Amino acid sequence: MKELKSIIDLTNSFKKFPSVGSKSAERMAYALLDMDKSEIDEIINAIENVSTKVHQCPICGVLTENNICSICEDKNRNHSTCIVVSHSKDVLAFEEIGTYHGVYHVLNGEISAYHGVTPKDLRISELLDRIDKEDIKEIIIATNPNIEGDTTALYLAEILKNKNVKVSRIGFGMPIGGQLDYTDSYTLKKSLENRTSIKEEK
Amino acid sequence: MKELKSIIDLTNSFKKFPSVGSKSAERMAYALLDMDKSEIDEIINAIENVSTKVHQCPICGVLTENNICSICEDKNRNHSTCIVVSHSKDVLAFEEIGTYHGVYHVLNGEISAYHGVTPKDLRISELLDRIDKEDIKEIIIATNPNIEGDTTALYLAEILKNKNVKVSRIGFGMPIGGQLDYTDSYTLKKSLENRTSIKEEK
Repeated sequence: MKELKSIIDLTNSFKKFPSVGSKSAERMAYALLDMDKSEIDEIINAIENVSTKVHQCPICGVLTENNICSICEDKNRNHSTCIVVSHSKDVLAFEEIGTYHGVYHVLNGEISAYHGVTPKDLRISELLDRIDKEDIKEIIIATNPNIEGDTTALYLAEILKNKNVKVSRIGFGMPIGGQLDYTDSYTLKKSLENRTSIKEEK
Repeated sequence: MKELKSIIDLTNSFKKFPSVGSKSAERMAYALLDMDKSEIDEIINAIENVSTKVHQCPICGVLTENNICSICEDKNRNHSTCIVVSHSKDVLAFEEIGTYHGVYHVLNGEISAYHGVTPKDLRISELLDRIDKEDIKEIIIATNPNIEGDTTALYLAEILKNKNVKVSRIGFGMPIGGQLDYTDSYTLKKSLENRTSIKEEK
């Protein structure tokens, strides 16, 4: 007797998710057998909802279920200051601090030779358009503190040289090698306060 | 801005699986956003297949996609020897050895005061029926070597006292290739209890 095909298929499906190894995936597949129909329907619905309802805000790239995200729509926020992040979920980390009232721009990744991600794959031209159209005065780069994030920050600084905009990068607090979405809000708050200018305003 | 409802729902769904914590579940939910439609459909199909096709063999309780499992249906196997396991998945471990040609009986758990599992919750009456009907001559109990597994084994031994059937429990001790100083005391205690003579007394 060998493992059942449908259990192997489900194990392989679960293995596609990050940080789910072979043994965890198998455990998850078996766990499904102990769930009742309503629980399984709930899981399937949740997967379908995320895949159909959630999309990126056409302005900033933050994930939203509305046409335009709640941050871009909020007239009370400061639309002249913009934090540039690699991924939409990094925005939540900054929102949790509660003291930042500017807007965001999601790049959808970081420049990476290893993963073959070039500047063209990122939402950089969209950022340049926004700077012109939305009268953005300050850009705070909040890419991750690793090789890809550093490369992306340097590339952005270079690209933004000729724009009339202050450019800084968050600095203090973030441990090197850490990841934004695992960082506590106190550390993030410090990193905002201690941001260092990498390009002066003209 | 707060986390999107559909992402929260999916994160909560993933958290229902064993060894999936809050952060892992959230990562999995976000990972889904990077998958294309065909991959997501594959995952949903895999979940549906497992939940609709897989059921327990009505004879031995092993998970199967057929009416009766391939082991119970196999006339070449020795149907008079039966290994009793706690969970269907334990059967695969024995099948991997390749030298056991008897049948199995799945209890669907182990007696546990902590988890409120009583003998009535297990497939014990089914085992007694099989001993009578299928002419089983030997029962090998292979519940786990822990408090619950030991309790279940002792309970079965007591229940089977009046049946004309040989009852044994798989041997416990040092795993092959293991190291003494890395072995826990429970295992070492078992290995002393289960010592085998290699030279008889004169």
